[in-house]
Amino acid sequence: MVKVLYPTSLKLDVDALQGFAATLHPYDVTKPFTDDLADADVLIAWSNKPENLKDGASRLKNLKWIQSLAAGPNDVLNAGFDSSKISITTGSGLHDHTVAEHALGLLLNACRRFYEMRDYQLRSEWPQHLGGAQPDRPKGKFTSLRGANVLIWGYGNIGKTLTPHLVSLGANVRGVARSAGVRNGVEVLSESQLAQALPETDALVMILPGSESTTNALNAERMKLLPNHAWVVNVGRGTTIDEEALFNALNSGEIGGAALDVFVQEPLPKESKLWKAPNVIISPHAAGGRPQEAEELIAYNLRRFCAEQSLKNVI
Amino acid sequence: MVKVLYPTSLKLDVDALQGFAATLHPYDVTKPFTDDLADADVLIAWSNKPENLKDGASRLKNLKWIQSLAAGPNDVLNAGFDSSKISITTGSGLHDHTVAEHALGLLLNACRRFYEMRDYQLRSEWPQHLGGAQPDRPKGKFTSLRGANVLIWGYGNIGKTLTPHLVSLGANVRGVARSAGVRNGVEVLSESQLAQALPETDALVMILPGSESTTNALNAERMKLLPNHAWVVNVGRGTTIDEEALFNALNSGEIGGAALDVFVQEPLPKESKLWKAPNVIISPHAAGGRPQEAEELIAYNLRRFCAEQSLKNVI
Repeated sequence: MVKVLYPTSLKLDVDALQGFAATLHPYDVTKPFTDDLADADVLIAWSNKPENLKDGASRLKNLKWIQSLAAGPNDVLNAGFDSSKISITTGSGLHDHTVAEHALGLLLNACRRFYEMRDYQLRSEWPQHLGGAQPDRPKGKFTSLRGANVLIWGYGNIGKTLTPHLVSLGANVRGVARSAGVRNGVEVLSESQLAQALPETDALVMILPGSESTTNALNAERMKLLPNHAWVVNVGRGTTIDEEALFNALNSGEIGGAALDVFVQEPLPKESKLWKAPNVIISPHAAGGRPQEAEELIAYNLRRFCAEQSLKNVI
Repeated sequence: MVKVLYPTSLKLDVDALQGFAATLHPYDVTKPFTDDLADADVLIAWSNKPENLKDGASRLKNLKWIQSLAAGPNDVLNAGFDSSKISITTGSGLHDHTVAEHALGLLLNACRRFYEMRDYQLRSEWPQHLGGAQPDRPKGKFTSLRGANVLIWGYGNIGKTLTPHLVSLGANVRGVARSAGVRNGVEVLSESQLAQALPETDALVMILPGSESTTNALNAERMKLLPNHAWVVNVGRGTTIDEEALFNALNSGEIGGAALDVFVQEPLPKESKLWKAPNVIISPHAAGGRPQEAEELIAYNLRRFCAEQSLKNVI
């Protein structure tokens, strides 16, 4: 029987994980593993404390597979597990709906200027310039998703989930990914085509994973290619934007604004200049954080693991 | 030839209104009508000053038709035009996309708590409780449109435009209107069924027109029927909610929050208690205010007027 450890850090429907050639054991992600769990074959990880994972890396000697429920398993990779002996699978797909919804909300927050309305509300002031009769989608402003050119950089599952919502609101959506092509009817450009695409962009949605190759992907040079009214939305990883360059671009009005859910350092330090930059929306890494239908993915992979078949979402 | 006055308060593509048995004359909505316009047959109205409309009502003796571009032509009705001699048509339909987009934005602002994040941002504080690992759609909270029960009260064109966006995000949508039935595949209840529907509602979207029969439609009694976590979104008319009862419901936690684009008195007076009520989002009548494809409606009705055929959107 395969010995599986599942975390108590989220509500899992354990009944939906039964019936396989496996035994299921709960564990606390905030503490060292208890001795009776040390011979586990499989670890399901979700929002584990770094110390817990480090403890697991040194003490779970029998481990063959780690199923992370996070979209990007950086925490697992950083803990020191022996990846030559242990398969690691991600929770890619479990966060598509929730991150797409948040990204849509940030885009609407940006173009409908709810953040600015809030500032007025706190002073009991009616922001007349944001309401009443107004021009319909004037040139050089991002006031609606209808007719807006949205570019999604990092066009994976989340981008594919987000796209139909944007399209049905009237946006023109294109993607950017390592390989160009057409996916689900959406034109996906390669990064070498960014220089042509950025100047035509009203909103750039970043959904890049964190890695060495994506560090500062959006740098000063590329920001300069965006129109002055363009917004940047980041629901990927904070490291993919050069934050100093972003602050400068916001401050000089080189771009229209930025709605950020992720940062190089999280929580964003109190002394960061980004808090008070003009037209910036700070969201506390809230887009994901709640895997949906995790049981389906775990059960799918657990059956395959028991049957010695290849797993889904292997990194 | 029919003499048509069109307002310069919005950018109209006048070329698209030519070719009919009519002459087109611009006018300033902020001033009295000039003498050469006094014999006009048709008035197109948009964001007119009350004094301008009052002047028109007394001096445009030949007037036979007023095409308002507003969704609700209360300003025209209040100006004193002789409605026994003058047909009045509304801009119903011209605001569907823009109001639906704003309503969607308010709903996401509510469930994703962007307004609360903003308050933290202004203090350079990271709202840890709103981000990171969190329960997925816990019972008794409105945290996502996915799986949420949304009730649209006043189920007309705007509601029909809003619905597919909500459905594709995973919401369960029902409408409420004077007559029950199924419209575009959506179950529409009659107002007599509200008492059953309100307790099952996570978000109530009000899109009722302003009239005597809708005044205080959402009153204290009906608010009590909503669950404590339910949000109220109003993009219809301010008079349709009893604001005193709403303040009490917000203050006592009887409802989860309110995102309001319209108010009994606009601008919302500085001394209104609503500004500082808990979990309230104040938007300055910004949902509509920018008619889209107005030329199509005007041209459609102008041809019919010239041909002595019945008009669209007659009140």
